[in-house]
Amino acid sequence: MIKNGKIHVIGLGPGDRQHMSERARTAILDSEVVIGYKTYIALVEDLLEGKEVIDSGMRKEVERCNLTVDKALDGKRVCIISSGDAGVYGMAGIMLEVKNERNADVEIEIIPGITAANAAAASLGAPMMHDFAVISLSDLLTDWELIKKRIECAAMGDFIISLYNPKSMGRVHQIEEARDILLKYKKPSTPVGIVKNAKRKGEEVVITDLAHMLNYPIDMLTVVMIGNGKTYVKNGKMITPRGYQL
Amino acid sequence: MIKNGKIHVIGLGPGDRQHMSERARTAILDSEVVIGYKTYIALVEDLLEGKEVIDSGMRKEVERCNLTVDKALDGKRVCIISSGDAGVYGMAGIMLEVKNERNADVEIEIIPGITAANAAAASLGAPMMHDFAVISLSDLLTDWELIKKRIECAAMGDFIISLYNPKSMGRVHQIEEARDILLKYKKPSTPVGIVKNAKRKGEEVVITDLAHMLNYPIDMLTVVMIGNGKTYVKNGKMITPRGYQL
Repeated sequence: MIKNGKIHVIGLGPGDRQHMSERARTAILDSEVVIGYKTYIALVEDLLEGKEVIDSGMRKEVERCNLTVDKALDGKRVCIISSGDAGVYGMAGIMLEVKNERNADVEIEIIPGITAANAAAASLGAPMMHDFAVISLSDLLTDWELIKKRIECAAMGDFIISLYNPKSMGRVHQIEEARDILLKYKKPSTPVGIVKNAKRKGEEVVITDLAHMLNYPIDMLTVVMIGNGKTYVKNGKMITPRGYQL
Repeated sequence: MIKNGKIHVIGLGPGDRQHMSERARTAILDSEVVIGYKTYIALVEDLLEGKEVIDSGMRKEVERCNLTVDKALDGKRVCIISSGDAGVYGMAGIMLEVKNERNADVEIEIIPGITAANAAAASLGAPMMHDFAVISLSDLLTDWELIKKRIECAAMGDFIISLYNPKSMGRVHQIEEARDILLKYKKPSTPVGIVKNAKRKGEEVVITDLAHMLNYPIDMLTVVMIGNGKTYVKNGKMITPRGYQL
């Protein structure tokens, strides 16, 4: 009798190997099968010797999870990888959903990683020292009206706001509308950090403000960080004070 | 001439060494001086051989940062450590502020870590798969009225909400008031995860709902995770669907 295998859902962190956790690394090494979008597979190529590797294209999330369950039901130790934290717009949820849907008797462990907001914050200085909101501008799976409402509520609450998936080739108006909503509550001089490829190869960091943010390149690999009412820029770093007396 | 040293501000992650990044580990090993609150120093004891170690008590944040600058100006490689992500209610901001205040010619690198919300989410299942807000209930440095407003705005926007510092020995009413505000917008049956010591020794995970959450122990080592309108509990896991079609 083959004992059913175990599934590890792994967040690789921002991309640079140095920012991956030891737990993620050992879980990959211990796996017999590694499944993931090909860009992420490439990030851990050197850990994959002797393993079955299944890479797939974008938007094949459900298919990837089903394959993962199949392999685990075959008794294999499988890991499914994505960048950042698997629990933030990543594979953790859909993996649990597919397992439940199939009523599959396999164990799943979610291994957290450093998500893009935290990576971008570190490269900007210390913008995320106080209450913050993370919002994805992708309306592929979420109604744009709901996303707009969330931007409005986060701005109204003077949250630091980290925008994921701010813009893609075919999706350009969201970041402009988002900025219009933010400007209803936040000053045009509110600091904005734009970080492309945070904490990985090709990192680009821009610090600007709400008034000027659209003058800079923004794409799917970018996180846009908007300060709260107390955020300021000094010596090239974006800082949100926590409130300590110096 | 002694070259001024470098400061690393390090987030150790949730506490279990396995969830620390390689970058954090090597930066500690490369340091000559390690400064931190004594609880965090204890977490990395085995990395400290041959180093000058300065541990200090709670609420000495500014003093600790000044000491760090002093050591760096002496030409030392210094690291200042805290748990989770140094950039989320951690030491990153105050470190940059103290450096700027003293106009000190030292380089500072912020090394991100896995913050408590992401660690707790992994132990709960996949509650944080959609837009979320992180709010600290500590009113030591922040006006309680502002915190309440943020809870209200986050609830209004149907964010997943992660509450840090929900309750301490001398501060008990905030979590009750927070729940009252949440109940204005969210159903009593909204799933709530309560995670103590997320991803470290002594972890305790409870999954309940808004109606019953106050029946469980909550303290300063606890993160309270409140679902959005679509979050559900199945097979002992808290899941917020991203919206994929199964």
